[in-house]
Amino acid sequence: MAVPDSIESECDVLIIGAGPAGLMLAAWMARCGINARIVDKRGTKIYNGQADGLQLRSLEIFDSFGFADRVWKEANHLLEFCMWNPGEDGLIRRSDRVPDVAPGLSRFTEIVLHQGRIERFFLDHIKKHSKDSLRVERGVLPEALEIDQDRIHDHSAGNYPITVQLRYLSEEEAMPVQSKGSAVNDGLFRSNLAEDDTEDLIANSRRNQGSTETVRAKYVVGCDGAHSWTRKQLGFQLEGEPTDHIWGVLDIIPITDFPDIRKRCAIHSADAGSMMVIPREKKLTRLYIQLTEIKPDASGRADRSKITPDTILKAAKKILAPYSLSYEYCDWWTAYQIGQRVGTNFDKDSRVFLAGDAVHTHSPKAGQGMNVSMQDSYNLGWKLGLVIKGIAEPSILKTYQSERRRIAKDLIAFDHKFSRLFSGRPAKDLMDEEGVNMEEFKQAFVKGNLFASGLSVDYGTSMLVGKPGDAVEQGDGTDVSSKTQVVGKQELATGLKLGMRFPSHQVINQSDARVWEFQQKLKSDGRFRIVVFAGNVASPQQNARLKAFCQRLSSSSLLAPHLVKTIDVLTLHSSKRIDVELLTDFPDVLHPFDSKTGWDYDSVYADDGNYYTPGADAYNKYGVDRETGCVVVARPDQYVGYIDTLDEAGVQGVEAYFAGILRT
Amino acid sequence: MAVPDSIESECDVLIIGAGPAGLMLAAWMARCGINARIVDKRGTKIYNGQADGLQLRSLEIFDSFGFADRVWKEANHLLEFCMWNPGEDGLIRRSDRVPDVAPGLSRFTEIVLHQGRIERFFLDHIKKHSKDSLRVERGVLPEALEIDQDRIHDHSAGNYPITVQLRYLSEEEAMPVQSKGSAVNDGLFRSNLAEDDTEDLIANSRRNQGSTETVRAKYVVGCDGAHSWTRKQLGFQLEGEPTDHIWGVLDIIPITDFPDIRKRCAIHSADAGSMMVIPREKKLTRLYIQLTEIKPDASGRADRSKITPDTILKAAKKILAPYSLSYEYCDWWTAYQIGQRVGTNFDKDSRVFLAGDAVHTHSPKAGQGMNVSMQDSYNLGWKLGLVIKGIAEPSILKTYQSERRRIAKDLIAFDHKFSRLFSGRPAKDLMDEEGVNMEEFKQAFVKGNLFASGLSVDYGTSMLVGKPGDAVEQGDGTDVSSKTQVVGKQELATGLKLGMRFPSHQVINQSDARVWEFQQKLKSDGRFRIVVFAGNVASPQQNARLKAFCQRLSSSSLLAPHLVKTIDVLTLHSSKRIDVELLTDFPDVLHPFDSKTGWDYDSVYADDGNYYTPGADAYNKYGVDRETGCVVVARPDQYVGYIDTLDEAGVQGVEAYFAGILRT
Repeated sequence: MAVPDSIESECDVLIIGAGPAGLMLAAWMARCGINARIVDKRGTKIYNGQADGLQLRSLEIFDSFGFADRVWKEANHLLEFCMWNPGEDGLIRRSDRVPDVAPGLSRFTEIVLHQGRIERFFLDHIKKHSKDSLRVERGVLPEALEIDQDRIHDHSAGNYPITVQLRYLSEEEAMPVQSKGSAVNDGLFRSNLAEDDTEDLIANSRRNQGSTETVRAKYVVGCDGAHSWTRKQLGFQLEGEPTDHIWGVLDIIPITDFPDIRKRCAIHSADAGSMMVIPREKKLTRLYIQLTEIKPDASGRADRSKITPDTILKAAKKILAPYSLSYEYCDWWTAYQIGQRVGTNFDKDSRVFLAGDAVHTHSPKAGQGMNVSMQDSYNLGWKLGLVIKGIAEPSILKTYQSERRRIAKDLIAFDHKFSRLFSGRPAKDLMDEEGVNMEEFKQAFVKGNLFASGLSVDYGTSMLVGKPGDAVEQGDGTDVSSKTQVVGKQELATGLKLGMRFPSHQVINQSDARVWEFQQKLKSDGRFRIVVFAGNVASPQQNARLKAFCQRLSSSSLLAPHLVKTIDVLTLHSSKRIDVELLTDFPDVLHPFDSKTGWDYDSVYADDGNYYTPGADAYNKYGVDRETGCVVVARPDQYVGYIDTLDEAGVQGVEAYFAGILRT
Repeated sequence: MAVPDSIESECDVLIIGAGPAGLMLAAWMARCGINARIVDKRGTKIYNGQADGLQLRSLEIFDSFGFADRVWKEANHLLEFCMWNPGEDGLIRRSDRVPDVAPGLSRFTEIVLHQGRIERFFLDHIKKHSKDSLRVERGVLPEALEIDQDRIHDHSAGNYPITVQLRYLSEEEAMPVQSKGSAVNDGLFRSNLAEDDTEDLIANSRRNQGSTETVRAKYVVGCDGAHSWTRKQLGFQLEGEPTDHIWGVLDIIPITDFPDIRKRCAIHSADAGSMMVIPREKKLTRLYIQLTEIKPDASGRADRSKITPDTILKAAKKILAPYSLSYEYCDWWTAYQIGQRVGTNFDKDSRVFLAGDAVHTHSPKAGQGMNVSMQDSYNLGWKLGLVIKGIAEPSILKTYQSERRRIAKDLIAFDHKFSRLFSGRPAKDLMDEEGVNMEEFKQAFVKGNLFASGLSVDYGTSMLVGKPGDAVEQGDGTDVSSKTQVVGKQELATGLKLGMRFPSHQVINQSDARVWEFQQKLKSDGRFRIVVFAGNVASPQQNARLKAFCQRLSSSSLLAPHLVKTIDVLTLHSSKRIDVELLTDFPDVLHPFDSKTGWDYDSVYADDGNYYTPGADAYNKYGVDRETGCVVVARPDQYVGYIDTLDEAGVQGVEAYFAGILRT
């Protein structure tokens, strides 16, 4: 066999790992038109098991890309959370029903859909939007990474300071090894009870004289999971300790007389351990089952060989008694050891980044894993896009670690508390101090839900968030302060919190009266949006004010042709739709004229209802004065960056905000 | 060139024509598992122009197949209808705004999406559900049809009384001929101003010695348009006369200062004719423009050569003055002569059927064409399915003509009136008796909208609709009376009209509290549904009543194993969800147990809200007593067939209803 040639190539962004975090980043690259590649060591997608919980913020993000509807339709919906605890007779009974997430947070509720389907929707989206036919290269893994320190600060177009050697596996080499002796798919090979296989894969391929490629990249993003190869090359650590708690997971079609099998449930048995019920699509239910009889050995690791679907089912039956439980169909099973760990660094030289499980691991029961991982790279993608296109200052890349490592730490603290309460034996009475108080568990669940929804994320001050305070304190310790800190006027829009996501309320299009969720107009297309809350345009006084604002805005350099793909203008007014006319009451800058296609009819909205849907009182919910309005800047990821008055000074404020971001 | 062999084959249903009517029928065939074929003389799909208006009932039907969401997302939505009339100065001004359709009729509103996309969704659906890989055979057309009269009453499985000779066109032969001298797609070749080309296609292929196939079929359905070849073979006529009104159509991206260009508008100019504005997807607008300067010649036909996009635009500019109108992009254009015609027969020997434009033609402006055509074959498909499978009496096939020809006649009457009012010059004053009174036009529009929605369809009594009265009088004159007429108890469900479609209201699933539109549970899968309005199950008295009803129902032959794909049971109760439990309060017949997958959790619903959505008061809207309930039978096409009491006598009534339908 001949020694194969190694080829060489260049790309702007190399993404390592095609799970949800990697695919989210690839989606951004496609939308921003960046020359990117994405590789994954596995030869095939994985079709069973894995993550499935989708939190509200993730659904809003999917909607911003345009495929939330596909997820929503296929998913199972979780509306109610039931708690089951031992009664005085020691048998479990339903003690509480609460909403799965607090009503009113979002137009979405929590849903469950297999990770493989989410990956499919990402792949379809990437294919649709990628000019360069960005696609996942499977059976390809990195074996060497080098950063040329002399060139990391050079942002000229032809500079590729990172070199990665890629190795191509044969089809056989790239197949995941299933554990022996089971006809059912199991996830133990990816569980934290198993060793990583990356080194073996590389060594094996070298023996087989597989082919390689040398890629020179501007940026590399490691989305390569808890055993992250990329993280190891950078010498970064995950900090934290495993616990003694071992849990099994069964994805089955349950045959049971347990009444709440189609609801999310937390079950604390008197002394057989705890179980969580997550009803899924296609009649499947996922059961998280505490394996109280299996303990870690001296090395701190549990013996995998003792864990089978049968041992897990036996444990589940004990917890669920006196209700029956059996199954004919098992789709997948696995086991894991609870532990919470967070990465010391998310970023090396603002050139190599880590996202997802590579920088935070925790227990899966709160349904956070896939969500926080995707939200990591959702935070990073548009920043990379703007920097690579030469539009934004490279310094904005530091906000990735500052914003996301802070979230990871919060997540780990939340999971630590929740896991402890859930794995603990219920207190027998008030004197039983070793037991877990079930009222405390309920309160932790309800409070934790807001965090788990992803909607409480509040990014600290930086060049991207114009709010008061100290950038180091509000983030993870990284210095992301702006050269010239601007501070938005929070009081002008009390329902739009600087640093938090732009919430959604229903509005109607001025031109055709169609109802939209306003957030749907903040698409993930890489653009900042200047949202003009135009106020009561039907009043002559406010109309004159709006015209003065628009005159100043239309002469601003922010609307120069080279920024048309970076900054967009969107308008929401508070008059009745029929009291104003698009062409006469709203200056052209709010609905630009094109010589080929006429005026734009999709950029001016009214806080009003139509014949079929009542008005939603959006101004009131956004906390904006109905008469005088204001101007708000939303980042490309829908987080509120800046707020100012609807006048010339407001335009100057917006210009000052962008001065801290855009390259001059 | 050798003479090709002619092959022979058999199929249950041969569908001629793959437009919306043909594809709707093919969708039913796929869902019912029938061995069908569908052929179309055109070699390719047509991508521009054609029909685009989608009425409420069509959307409900799409939803029953599961793809309304795709249509809804891509379509443009029409919410408001504006009327523009001449003012005292003779210039047009907006005189009225009204809702596009009356609020409260349906969860849908009117939308517009190109017919080609609708066909795509049908094709995807057929592919997904067809075991036998049913697919459109393009460039294939029939050239001979023969019915063996001796065998039309023999319904044994091996009897194929119809013989059709199919001819295969070459790729070139099957391409539609565009009119010369225009770079833009036009639809004149399909317009009623043009001759049909079927005979030419056949003659040409014969000269070229193209290949043929002899198909023996049980049933043939001609969905082959206004020039229907099938209709001609049967010797049936379209009755009606053309008018003198010639209209042009432009699909353009308009450049205009007309303020309502993104709303549906009817514009009557003082003396330049009328125009309808239909805003479409992708910034397109369709303009229907009256060509007052073009008149039919002595033969009754207009001269096609005088009609170009320029002449149509000039006419439009005159109507729209003083507003400007121009375009850079024209997607499609055509012209047509208004006329209303309806077929003398829809059915030959209950073996060959005609649907869609083959049996009714009219003007396109009310957006009815595609809708009524699809609803024709939606009415026919499940009946064919049940008869072919040997489950239903062949006599039910007569209800197709009885039900649909009646609708076609109503449609033609509606269109005649609407077209006359729209093509007429507006009255100058009350003394101007030749002119059209604009108030009369508005009233006709508002009244016509309910008809146009498709929701006022009210099928007459027959073996499929248990209501009082005379079957001949209530239909088109065909005798479809039942041997033993049963009459449902309309007073038990005053919001569910016998003969009308089952309206939709929101309900929640008993097992997981998820909100559904109840109509979504009446899927188009070929099954009748026994809808058990279980009443207040939390009351011990009603609970006992329900159990007695269920005991009788579970021993009924209607639930015998061979009918499991024909009759389904669906339950809606009126208690609070949390006051009852699925497994203990509802007998198994309402949520059957399966030894492999446990209980069914998708068949019992509550008239209740959840934490996120308030209750919709469905019992009240269905007009059903909250305490005592009732039982309702919905046909496979969602029309209400029968209503009775929730007791043993009610089960007997339901059995009597089915006795008139099912083969013994």
